[in-house]
Amino acid sequence: MPTEVRSLNEECGIFGVWGHSEASHVTYFGLHNLQHRGQEGAGIVSNEEGYLRGYRGLGLLSEVFADEKKINKLKGNAAIGHVRYATSGNGHVDNIQPFLFRFFDGQVGLAHNGNLTNAKTLRRELEENGAIFHSNSDTEILMHLIRKNQAPTFLESLKASLKQVHGGFAYILMTEDALYGALDPNGFRPLSIGLMKNGAYVIASETCALEAIGAAFVRDVQPGEVVMINDEGLKVDTFTTETQHAICSMEYIYFARPDSNIAGVNVHTARKNMGRRLAKEAAIEADMVIGVPNSSLSAASGYAEYSGIPYELGLVKNQYVARTFIQPTQELREQGVRMKLSAVRGVVEGKKVILVDDSIVRGTTSKRIVQLLKEAGAKEVHLRIASPPLKYPCFYGIDIQTRKELIAADLSIEEMRERIGADSLAFLSEEGLIDAIGLKFDAPYTGLCMAYFNGDFPTPLYDYEANYQASLLDKKSRF
Amino acid sequence: MPTEVRSLNEECGIFGVWGHSEASHVTYFGLHNLQHRGQEGAGIVSNEEGYLRGYRGLGLLSEVFADEKKINKLKGNAAIGHVRYATSGNGHVDNIQPFLFRFFDGQVGLAHNGNLTNAKTLRRELEENGAIFHSNSDTEILMHLIRKNQAPTFLESLKASLKQVHGGFAYILMTEDALYGALDPNGFRPLSIGLMKNGAYVIASETCALEAIGAAFVRDVQPGEVVMINDEGLKVDTFTTETQHAICSMEYIYFARPDSNIAGVNVHTARKNMGRRLAKEAAIEADMVIGVPNSSLSAASGYAEYSGIPYELGLVKNQYVARTFIQPTQELREQGVRMKLSAVRGVVEGKKVILVDDSIVRGTTSKRIVQLLKEAGAKEVHLRIASPPLKYPCFYGIDIQTRKELIAADLSIEEMRERIGADSLAFLSEEGLIDAIGLKFDAPYTGLCMAYFNGDFPTPLYDYEANYQASLLDKKSRF
Amino acid sequence: MPTEVRSLNEECGIFGVWGHSEASHVTYFGLHNLQHRGQEGAGIVSNEEGYLRGYRGLGLLSEVFADEKKINKLKGNAAIGHVRYATSGNGHVDNIQPFLFRFFDGQVGLAHNGNLTNAKTLRRELEENGAIFHSNSDTEILMHLIRKNQAPTFLESLKASLKQVHGGFAYILMTEDALYGALDPNGFRPLSIGLMKNGAYVIASETCALEAIGAAFVRDVQPGEVVMINDEGLKVDTFTTETQHAICSMEYIYFARPDSNIAGVNVHTARKNMGRRLAKEAAIEADMVIGVPNSSLSAASGYAEYSGIPYELGLVKNQYVARTFIQPTQELREQGVRMKLSAVRGVVEGKKVILVDDSIVRGTTSKRIVQLLKEAGAKEVHLRIASPPLKYPCFYGIDIQTRKELIAADLSIEEMRERIGADSLAFLSEEGLIDAIGLKFDAPYTGLCMAYFNGDFPTPLYDYEANYQASLLDKKSRF
Amino acid sequence: MPTEVRSLNEECGIFGVWGHSEASHVTYFGLHNLQHRGQEGAGIVSNEEGYLRGYRGLGLLSEVFADEKKINKLKGNAAIGHVRYATSGNGHVDNIQPFLFRFFDGQVGLAHNGNLTNAKTLRRELEENGAIFHSNSDTEILMHLIRKNQAPTFLESLKASLKQVHGGFAYILMTEDALYGALDPNGFRPLSIGLMKNGAYVIASETCALEAIGAAFVRDVQPGEVVMINDEGLKVDTFTTETQHAICSMEYIYFARPDSNIAGVNVHTARKNMGRRLAKEAAIEADMVIGVPNSSLSAASGYAEYSGIPYELGLVKNQYVARTFIQPTQELREQGVRMKLSAVRGVVEGKKVILVDDSIVRGTTSKRIVQLLKEAGAKEVHLRIASPPLKYPCFYGIDIQTRKELIAADLSIEEMRERIGADSLAFLSEEGLIDAIGLKFDAPYTGLCMAYFNGDFPTPLYDYEANYQASLLDKKSRF
Repeated sequence: MPTEVRSLNEECGIFGVWGHSEASHVTYFGLHNLQHRGQEGAGIVSNEEGYLRGYRGLGLLSEVFADEKKINKLKGNAAIGHVRYATSGNGHVDNIQPFLFRFFDGQVGLAHNGNLTNAKTLRRELEENGAIFHSNSDTEILMHLIRKNQAPTFLESLKASLKQVHGGFAYILMTEDALYGALDPNGFRPLSIGLMKNGAYVIASETCALEAIGAAFVRDVQPGEVVMINDEGLKVDTFTTETQHAICSMEYIYFARPDSNIAGVNVHTARKNMGRRLAKEAAIEADMVIGVPNSSLSAASGYAEYSGIPYELGLVKNQYVARTFIQPTQELREQGVRMKLSAVRGVVEGKKVILVDDSIVRGTTSKRIVQLLKEAGAKEVHLRIASPPLKYPCFYGIDIQTRKELIAADLSIEEMRERIGADSLAFLSEEGLIDAIGLKFDAPYTGLCMAYFNGDFPTPLYDYEANYQASLLDKKSRF
Repeated sequence: MPTEVRSLNEECGIFGVWGHSEASHVTYFGLHNLQHRGQEGAGIVSNEEGYLRGYRGLGLLSEVFADEKKINKLKGNAAIGHVRYATSGNGHVDNIQPFLFRFFDGQVGLAHNGNLTNAKTLRRELEENGAIFHSNSDTEILMHLIRKNQAPTFLESLKASLKQVHGGFAYILMTEDALYGALDPNGFRPLSIGLMKNGAYVIASETCALEAIGAAFVRDVQPGEVVMINDEGLKVDTFTTETQHAICSMEYIYFARPDSNIAGVNVHTARKNMGRRLAKEAAIEADMVIGVPNSSLSAASGYAEYSGIPYELGLVKNQYVARTFIQPTQELREQGVRMKLSAVRGVVEGKKVILVDDSIVRGTTSKRIVQLLKEAGAKEVHLRIASPPLKYPCFYGIDIQTRKELIAADLSIEEMRERIGADSLAFLSEEGLIDAIGLKFDAPYTGLCMAYFNGDFPTPLYDYEANYQASLLDKKSRF
Repeated sequence: MPTEVRSLNEECGIFGVWGHSEASHVTYFGLHNLQHRGQEGAGIVSNEEGYLRGYRGLGLLSEVFADEKKINKLKGNAAIGHVRYATSGNGHVDNIQPFLFRFFDGQVGLAHNGNLTNAKTLRRELEENGAIFHSNSDTEILMHLIRKNQAPTFLESLKASLKQVHGGFAYILMTEDALYGALDPNGFRPLSIGLMKNGAYVIASETCALEAIGAAFVRDVQPGEVVMINDEGLKVDTFTTETQHAICSMEYIYFARPDSNIAGVNVHTARKNMGRRLAKEAAIEADMVIGVPNSSLSAASGYAEYSGIPYELGLVKNQYVARTFIQPTQELREQGVRMKLSAVRGVVEGKKVILVDDSIVRGTTSKRIVQLLKEAGAKEVHLRIASPPLKYPCFYGIDIQTRKELIAADLSIEEMRERIGADSLAFLSEEGLIDAIGLKFDAPYTGLCMAYFNGDFPTPLYDYEANYQASLLDKKSRF
Repeated sequence: MPTEVRSLNEECGIFGVWGHSEASHVTYFGLHNLQHRGQEGAGIVSNEEGYLRGYRGLGLLSEVFADEKKINKLKGNAAIGHVRYATSGNGHVDNIQPFLFRFFDGQVGLAHNGNLTNAKTLRRELEENGAIFHSNSDTEILMHLIRKNQAPTFLESLKASLKQVHGGFAYILMTEDALYGALDPNGFRPLSIGLMKNGAYVIASETCALEAIGAAFVRDVQPGEVVMINDEGLKVDTFTTETQHAICSMEYIYFARPDSNIAGVNVHTARKNMGRRLAKEAAIEADMVIGVPNSSLSAASGYAEYSGIPYELGLVKNQYVARTFIQPTQELREQGVRMKLSAVRGVVEGKKVILVDDSIVRGTTSKRIVQLLKEAGAKEVHLRIASPPLKYPCFYGIDIQTRKELIAADLSIEEMRERIGADSLAFLSEEGLIDAIGLKFDAPYTGLCMAYFNGDFPTPLYDYEANYQASLLDKKSRF
């Protein structure tokens, strides 16, 4: 689960339910378990006998709906919801989803997780034909396409439109009479269907949201599929058959909650396996293994278990958030003031420590943690990363679109080690990662997207191609 | 560290610094690492060349000082601060500390952690002599006593007053020209002194607050001591020599942060040792050991290590707080909606699980967690508690003053197991606890207060004696 | 100026400035003097060297921009602003203006005062061609038309679009390089141009906003005109020559601030003349004349002056707003609790009073005020209304679109008097009103819209025609 | 009624009710009509069958009780309330009243309007005897005295204590079983008793608060009186017979609401008489009379009526408050931006204007208004002040304790005229003021305190004597 010291961010979490008398509360509980996928904004649109109504705001779910009246007004038997991550520049409520559109002939609620690679081209074409956009988000594009692709049924219009958008996307839509879920042809993002005890169907970004509401897992939405849920039940359709699994490997490594299953693989178990494999690939003698809380604890325990070296609590994370505006001054920083993570002197003092982290983005956090441990008296700190070096950007829904921010983009492992100040540094191999997750799809890398590590993008990059080629020439920035 | 599902609450955390140009910010960072000791209110009083100024409010530290201007106004080279826990009935800003008193001949800031056993008697005597109290808190009493005990120096007045109050107390006071810390004759609550790199002295409830600001540990304040810090440095004095260590064992078990040291013993290490000893005392075969996040992870890893049974992440805690007002309705509850903890189906399904928790108060949380695990498919759940059964109230600063709330007060272990629904249940022995912590004081229980477990209170109970005797007749409430 | 007890509401106030280094602050001050035209929401869009940026929110201007940072971010040399009134059902921030549109080839800010009579038809036509609307407001329509009416210049597109919308409208628009103002062919709403001392041009709904910023009055925007202001100065153009003045008479009677001039006529002077004429048309002997604060004080002083009867302060308005949720209970109401207006017993007791009000909508306020005066001991209360009876709805920007709410719609003057409980009741004649205002346009009613009083609408009603015909059959509701 | 541009401030308004099932709501409505006496803070203490409960906060009454739950919790059949003005330095919630004291043997609520002249001495004496104060306010002193003056009944303790405090004071107190009101021996501040229709007694600072709740006026509290109201009714007692009326003349001139009666004299009528007398004393030919809104409208209409010169609306006050932090920059100020008052160009242009104001404190406001009128084209502005020059400070409850702020303290009328920029300037004479108010008490100045104008303080100044003597040597500050 993301910590705030990280510079890697998921785009969103989405949720929908059809057939529950407290649909907006069910959606709240579902979104609550997806909050790790986005903390910048949240919203819910409900459907009360064909009338759609929404509320959305900036901040955490609990802040947006702090006034209970907000959610109580969202009456109805169906609802969809969204939690959003976004870079600060876009921090405007106009971009918070779900979007709610009202037409003279119908209403549509729309929530999106992912990133379109041909958004800029589509938007320009639409604007040239008179379309007006109200947000910076790619998400409106699908709605414009649906209105242009007039067809006898909403489902037909939707399928025609899904063929026009490219990249990574998981959509949930709601009309007056049905709920829809759709996944891109590579299935970059997870999307699962569940069934509540009262017969209501739900769709959610991760299975942990199904657990939150006591729903049984039914099936994953498959690449290229569009599912329709209405009072008659669940119907599965496809908008394209040209599909190939390329599940984002970072979901397993870092984004998803450890209690979720993706494509049938439990995330905690995958992480523990990464740790075990890492212990095999990059063994070293030490007094203890410690993990960076909270995202690396599974991998660290796997490393400890395989190596037989004791697992210790050498780092404590403050569970309370300090407002970021209260930054230590330079003077305080030099005196070692810190707020988020603390090293446990009583545990690490005088010890040789193996520090397990899930990944390295810029390297600044790793450097700080190594320093913390050394200041607390650790004799040696051996950094072990439970994934391969991140060298390439992502255009399918992860918020790093340039190589500049990636320390591994143009430094050798020894250069990185030196910058970070660790006594040794090792990464999990690509094969190790693939084996640890253990997917079995008949696809490259057994169904994983490994582009972050090797630049092998499973689709054309369209509007991003030029940017990407330029970024290959970037020099790594200093830190 | 306390989780919200727990019904056991610490009273407070206190902090003070003398000799730093950003004293109120240093105090903020120190308090931030003490936030686990109290979340209901927070405040800071600063000292700008002899003029004291304060701000306090309800809520978390980050909420009270959400507006940065609040803290920027608290200028000066010295400051004291407080984080408070309190029962809802007292949730009024008048009770939030530090208190700031202005007299024609001086100013005093005052912060308190603990509970006085003769407060009611003292307050009545003072009121009968014309005193006016403005809060419900015991804390004002010391100020009234100091003003009554006129002596040539503030230190003399303070020492005379400290002799009149009984029970558990750690005080930090600040006048125009000095900072004071004082600890009751039993040392129920921890209180430590640190030294910053620039030469500023700090006093704090726990050593983790020293780490937060890069201060080196100097020494613990000892029972019966009063320390004075001013521009000339640190001076240690005593107000009584009739002392005997009785450190609250719940600090080690549950309250303190794992990265703190109390009386030289690291809390995480003590907990891990409790887990190891528990594994020895109450062994059982199983597929995995899991701990209740976050407070029981140390004990659980100790259990796993000693027993050789793999430690797994079988429970996930949602790091985001859901507003409590959004309670699942009865219907949703029956459908299994839950918000705080989730069981990891992919890990526990079909498995025999050892569940380690640090303590049991009412038993309702334990029951809920066992149920979660079973619903997620666990075949058996064996509950192991890393402390002895809680049978008696506390009058020294912990918020349980009646036996009614304690499930162990009048149920046998088998009765408890049945209520909780576990397949087996075992507690750590008193001897096991004492050994695991490993204090070496020449005092009963090697310096621990074990009253919670055996009713052996180290002091007379004064105003509480009658209540306590009545509580011994209480019948355990149902849950 | 509107009081809260009134049920008659203006739609909006608009403002724009081009060429001032603190354009958003100038707009704030201008809007502040237009706040009486709308209290539900406010917003400002600024232009910093071609980049448009906006902020808007629900509530009074001072609430929306309570955080000074909000306005400080709106940098640039040009800005437009809006204050909005709206019925509660539409109280959503999506409807607050100015709207800000970003296209691949440009940006547009848009603010609107008025009501379109063919909005529904236009919106449906646009949606059938794929347009997506994001608000309930009519205002977006103009933007869609501009995008459809592609022409070599923005001004040409705008003029073509202005020909397609019907009803009452005053628009202010801003692009990267110019500010535009436009007025409907009848000039229902006021719109004036001013010049600041530094050479910056401003456009505002009322001249009192020019006074607020020290701008000299230049000219009114005329019916059918569109003005363009850019770095080269002011340029006046017309989109239609089929124009005829029909200035809303309610602007003079009630809406506008007394210090504004509309079409060269000072509003206070017009109101005083209405009072003088009313004194002539409906004389009666009495001890004093009192006006309903604050909107009727001008008319009341005119009545007093003409009649020679002393003008007294018989009613006091509480300048502080009591939250409306704290409603007196039935018991308190019966005991006479009141919060907004107080009768001055020391002035009116035992006296024969002439009460002057500007208009009567539902009659409930009049009834309450007459009762207040009688309870305070007034011997007789003679109600004099400084305008003719309101009998017809308005479709050009005033928020009464049905006759149901109008007491005069189907009651005789004697029936109204009886309901209100006054000792006598008289209204100003239509001729009296026209003479008192004293416009000189070569148009029916010398350039005034008198439809409220006589149903003589100066334009076709388009989408409202059916509603209006139905409303003629309405029976007056009881109160 | 005070406007914000004024530098003269009343200290407080107080209210109490006994015997009404919605006592706290009645108090809210009463305080609402006293809001002009203090805008910095507000509070209510209620009495539910002997249990006192309070809530108070910073800001307007409607802000403090914006959350309706706050007032709904204040249950009971009796309540007291307070609205407070205070200088910014004291703007802390600890100083907001009513104060609520809880003792082992009783509870007391206390609200105060006025200023004690021996507060400093009393406070020091009390502190030397161990008393602890929690606010900066003088108000706590009475409570300490009551606790020291132990007597068989609360009434006896209260009377003994009232003899020890000197200066100007109106107190309302509430114990478990009675409501008390008390007034200083000179009756500087107004305090009146009313009777509600249901038999409940109320006490209030001004009679306009009685009108607000439909209470009939019973009698004024007289100097030296203490009244007790309990379930048996109203009982009048005296704590001293050494009394002499010296009602604050500024209450009539400026502070009180025009609809209040003080000592049987209606405030509006008194002001109108001041205007009439001023017209007689300082006649001049002109085109119109205008008053400074809102406080001078009564005096201006009196001037107009006596002189026969038309009364016009030449100044308009913006009824909406602009946040003061949004100050025009220097550049904007020079361009004439203004926010609070506007001159009506259409009325004053080219005219000779008589401007009536109630008083002059610093003169800065007068200067600004004269300038506004001239910029709007007024040919001449003749300033007429409906009270004598303010030359001396006040120690009985008005917030000017130094002569430095008073323009009239050491400037001649001609010097003032020149600074202000008026074409002529005249003040009402002291005799004129006394006659216009028309009290009939057998006391100096017929019962008025005229110290502001002539330095004739009706009591010794005690702790203020030295300050006052020093202030006589002050030179007038520049503006």
